[in-house]
Amino acid sequence: MTRLLESYAQGRWFTADDAGSVVTSAVDGSDVARISSSGLDVAGMVAHARAVGGPALRALTFHERAGLLKQLGLTLMAGKEEFYELSTSTGATTRDSAVDIDGGIGTVLSYASKARRELPNDTVYLDGGVEQLGKKGTFLGRHIYTPRHGVAVQINAFNFPVWGFLEKLAPAFIAGVPSIIKPASQTAYLTELVVRRIIESCLLPEGSIQLICGSTDDLLDHLDGQDSVAFTGSAATAALLRSHPGIVAAGTHFTAEADSLNASILGPDVAVDDPEFDLFVKQLATEMTVKAGQKCTAIRRALVPADRVDAVIEATSARLAEVVVGDPRADGVTMGALASLEQREEVRTSVRGLTKSAEIVFGDPEHVDAVGTGTESGAFMSPILLRANDNDATEPHDIEAFGPVSTVIGYTDTADAVALAARGQGSLVASLVTKDTGVAREIVLGLAPYHGRVLVLNSEDARESTGHGSPLPVLVHGGPGRAGGGEELGGIRGVLHYMQRTAVQGTPDVLTAVGNSWVTGSRRHLGDVHPFRKNMAELRIGDTIVGGPRQVTLADIDHFAEFTGDTFYAHTDAEAAAANPLFGGIVAHGYLVVSLAAGLFVEPNPGPVLANFGVDTLRFLTPVKADDSLTVTLTAKQLTPRQSADYGEVRWDAVVTNQNDDVVATYDVLTLVAKEAQQ
Amino acid sequence: MTRLLESYAQGRWFTADDAGSVVTSAVDGSDVARISSSGLDVAGMVAHARAVGGPALRALTFHERAGLLKQLGLTLMAGKEEFYELSTSTGATTRDSAVDIDGGIGTVLSYASKARRELPNDTVYLDGGVEQLGKKGTFLGRHIYTPRHGVAVQINAFNFPVWGFLEKLAPAFIAGVPSIIKPASQTAYLTELVVRRIIESCLLPEGSIQLICGSTDDLLDHLDGQDSVAFTGSAATAALLRSHPGIVAAGTHFTAEADSLNASILGPDVAVDDPEFDLFVKQLATEMTVKAGQKCTAIRRALVPADRVDAVIEATSARLAEVVVGDPRADGVTMGALASLEQREEVRTSVRGLTKSAEIVFGDPEHVDAVGTGTESGAFMSPILLRANDNDATEPHDIEAFGPVSTVIGYTDTADAVALAARGQGSLVASLVTKDTGVAREIVLGLAPYHGRVLVLNSEDARESTGHGSPLPVLVHGGPGRAGGGEELGGIRGVLHYMQRTAVQGTPDVLTAVGNSWVTGSRRHLGDVHPFRKNMAELRIGDTIVGGPRQVTLADIDHFAEFTGDTFYAHTDAEAAAANPLFGGIVAHGYLVVSLAAGLFVEPNPGPVLANFGVDTLRFLTPVKADDSLTVTLTAKQLTPRQSADYGEVRWDAVVTNQNDDVVATYDVLTLVAKEAQQ
Repeated sequence: MTRLLESYAQGRWFTADDAGSVVTSAVDGSDVARISSSGLDVAGMVAHARAVGGPALRALTFHERAGLLKQLGLTLMAGKEEFYELSTSTGATTRDSAVDIDGGIGTVLSYASKARRELPNDTVYLDGGVEQLGKKGTFLGRHIYTPRHGVAVQINAFNFPVWGFLEKLAPAFIAGVPSIIKPASQTAYLTELVVRRIIESCLLPEGSIQLICGSTDDLLDHLDGQDSVAFTGSAATAALLRSHPGIVAAGTHFTAEADSLNASILGPDVAVDDPEFDLFVKQLATEMTVKAGQKCTAIRRALVPADRVDAVIEATSARLAEVVVGDPRADGVTMGALASLEQREEVRTSVRGLTKSAEIVFGDPEHVDAVGTGTESGAFMSPILLRANDNDATEPHDIEAFGPVSTVIGYTDTADAVALAARGQGSLVASLVTKDTGVAREIVLGLAPYHGRVLVLNSEDARESTGHGSPLPVLVHGGPGRAGGGEELGGIRGVLHYMQRTAVQGTPDVLTAVGNSWVTGSRRHLGDVHPFRKNMAELRIGDTIVGGPRQVTLADIDHFAEFTGDTFYAHTDAEAAAANPLFGGIVAHGYLVVSLAAGLFVEPNPGPVLANFGVDTLRFLTPVKADDSLTVTLTAKQLTPRQSADYGEVRWDAVVTNQNDDVVATYDVLTLVAKEAQQ
Repeated sequence: MTRLLESYAQGRWFTADDAGSVVTSAVDGSDVARISSSGLDVAGMVAHARAVGGPALRALTFHERAGLLKQLGLTLMAGKEEFYELSTSTGATTRDSAVDIDGGIGTVLSYASKARRELPNDTVYLDGGVEQLGKKGTFLGRHIYTPRHGVAVQINAFNFPVWGFLEKLAPAFIAGVPSIIKPASQTAYLTELVVRRIIESCLLPEGSIQLICGSTDDLLDHLDGQDSVAFTGSAATAALLRSHPGIVAAGTHFTAEADSLNASILGPDVAVDDPEFDLFVKQLATEMTVKAGQKCTAIRRALVPADRVDAVIEATSARLAEVVVGDPRADGVTMGALASLEQREEVRTSVRGLTKSAEIVFGDPEHVDAVGTGTESGAFMSPILLRANDNDATEPHDIEAFGPVSTVIGYTDTADAVALAARGQGSLVASLVTKDTGVAREIVLGLAPYHGRVLVLNSEDARESTGHGSPLPVLVHGGPGRAGGGEELGGIRGVLHYMQRTAVQGTPDVLTAVGNSWVTGSRRHLGDVHPFRKNMAELRIGDTIVGGPRQVTLADIDHFAEFTGDTFYAHTDAEAAAANPLFGGIVAHGYLVVSLAAGLFVEPNPGPVLANFGVDTLRFLTPVKADDSLTVTLTAKQLTPRQSADYGEVRWDAVVTNQNDDVVATYDVLTLVAKEAQQ
């Protein structure tokens, strides 16, 4: 007997108390593994995640979590060969496995990188600016994100046993929320192997990741409003889960990413002899055959100007004729098997449905010559191209054949193309191939409300294009309506889906304490030591230096104009400046104001402050006239020690005022500061 | 017979084809109106919103929509007296009506203002920055928001007949999505009056607002993935709607804001003789009696250090004893009626449930002496304060008495206080009264995952505090779990809930065209005319000026240090600068670089450019050494004409490079530019 896949629950590997059901190879029908979760304590897993995994993760900062993810990604990348080896049993070619395995690990590394660059080295994420809620500034509001105190349950599809769970694990982990992973049975053996390597690495805190191989039993009944379920699979199952009584009653967060009838549109401007025509055809053939078309993002509908339908069918058929179907381990094979014989039967049924209003113009759903030994027992199928006969028919827009199947549909004009695409009732992705930016704007904005992602392809970006079918970690993945109405990934956006946004109201000091970020109106600490003489370990939020006053003379303004060459009339021509509706006279350059302010707050000697690397949100609020006196107040606002460098980033709040206490300018100064004393 | 309320559907007022059911006054039980939607074509209303309202709204920019909302808000404010008059029949005092009527109109005006300040004068909202997806920069990604092509159905509660619909209408309108408003029958007469004034104003495009007085019939069956339903009401009804087969199958967006068991926590640091103690008691009494406690946000649980429970009960009871219950029109009345006799019966039932584990310490649920004529037929009730006898009991955390009812519960320490608050299973809001910012941070971060809003009150912000029970347009409103899991308001956040986020991938030129915002790598237009000589009507995105090169000498750096006083060692001390790990020698000041750059791009003569009002996201990427030569490229990035001024805002992309084409600095320059030719 083959091995019984194990679950990882409550800190140990669990073997089911029955023999389980057999999982077979997609390639030759041989037994690969058995699977069962019989006897598994799923309620105990939820409790373990809440009691052990959640607190362990929440004790880490975003940067610390990112550091662990980076190590994990590098570890998995180093050992990926065995994943590739096992992946062939799923019917995947090397190209298919790269999408799944390298794609999954790449997503982990992308999140590790994004989190360190875009999140604070803290446990709270600040969303947007401060809202002043009263005239005197004693009562403010600000939004924060904190991790939910629950578990992220992920229920994945069979087609991406590695990417499918890593793309959900990475953002949940960064958010500080533990995951329970439930792979689809057909390909769970590959997920189990990768999770085993993760557990063996001992990199992730205990409880932050658990695995269910087999049925989830009554898992959903144990969830509450702090938990979430992220589902990838069919729209029908998504609807079932979404209305599950436990989920509805408890207010559990539910998101779905479902199969969708994605379209690729050949722009009306593209002629048959344009390079863009070939790009369209090549992408169509690729999306039909990668993973044997078993991708939620594959192109199901090719929308083509009516007079170019024949040409598209001819060119696409020629490409499909070159596809070699068979055992992924055999030489020359370019398309592998469907996941199972059952899956192939489902696709054949779907194709029969499509033929009610379309005719097959390439391939035979009942027959293919598959290369390799034993492939007669494998789930192989020819690519199938159809031509829609009737543009009012519903089948091409409703029936998703989850295999190497696409339908070519003619359109009359751009509005028709957009309307046809929208008949998919919400899709994950659409492509548009066009040379014309005007066409791009019109069609993209038409498609946008119905799509989570739109790719515009032409000969300028084709070489770098990551392709219609590839969700990227930095871009959102999901789509409205039929596509599930969910959203995943998108960089930090994907992290925030696992967190609760809360509006906090209080005094400036309260907001500063809650957010670890200095807020205007909070207490300032004016000490004996210039804050530029403090390293990251010594510096405190609120540490302040006040510099000035310094008078700005007309001679200063004249000189600065001459020296910099900025002879804008408002600085140099009294008469013209007087006519300016905003100034009414000579004003100092904004750049002069901030340059003088720096002169007032800088501590000149070598010390912990290494460099000023930038300025944010500089606003000039009151014009500076000749003989005005400037004072600058600089306050440590936010401290971001870096995990992997000898210095960190310090954001300073800068306010420049004049002799009347009018605010002349506000901005943030960004500096690099040594973490510890040097020498 | 009293008047039959009308619906506003498909551009005209509709009268039901039956007599409808009677709606009575909360104050004296007299008939106020009749209500029915019998015969109303709700499918036609959905179609009308999609075919007429949506396209009309989407043809306007965010600023144009905001301009209409502003006019609407001012119009309603000018005529609000009749709303106040009718509002008394709902049992509302003048104070209660202000929350509903002025609160609602204020929300409209807040959205009008936020939209003009924070959204582009365009139809597409850009979310986040550009992601480079390939090494050469030919393939980029960026997220956009576009309005969904559907209708925003709002199903409101009886307690806020004006605010309830305006707080949903305003963000949907700004988003460009038409609304269908369904008020609760009990108080629909007031909603109908306000909607009638809106329609009479002729300010909003036809189809952007429709009204259903009566049943929604099978409205939900006509919705799809482009539509949304926003529900305010009970958690039970929210669960029912959320799992409605039509909504689930079509992927309709559903959001709920449900009653919740909001807590107010007296901090462990607050002694009985602190002013914060009085603030806690006063806020508790206020929240119990405003709207007779019929607010989703009212305080249901008062969490108090165990040794201060008696003192809190005593002080709160003393305040409650001063409450005068009765006809809102009668002199001296401070608390009006519940919405109906049925509502009062529900509250009495809830109080009986609460007394299983708590005792009543103030008030009699069965009796109150109500001031005014006919009040014996009105739905009046005494404020009821309870004391929890058993902290492990579930009743205080589960039973929501939707009236003037609160329970005082003792806690042992801050962790216990947080845990007790969390037993509400997700709430809209919590308050914390504390003087201590450390306590504030600990408790706020503990509460945050379970709450949509947390208010921290003390003697510093009490005078400006807007109160526990008041959602604000600029802060999110909603809560996880039992509170519905939804989110509304929050400024622009609330607008985006009605829009679809889409990742767009393509060349820089494509992204520039789609987003109307210049993207690095896009075509630049170097014309004969300096772009500073073009007004808003003439300027085009991509218009560019290149200035330089200008050499920066050691003398320049020396001089700048001396002139500005910025004598930081990296600019002045060759030996110390050489030891700096980032520079390795004397470098020019960042402020010198941007000052010289301005000298290279400025057009000195009077013209359409009126002022530089700011700089965003300045980053110094390569140090500038003595004798480096600087070149600046300035490109028009985004144009924002103002609706109500003679000028608009132009954002310029600035890139400074050195003689090796290394990028020295990047930033955005913000200018005000005249809309049309002057003189």
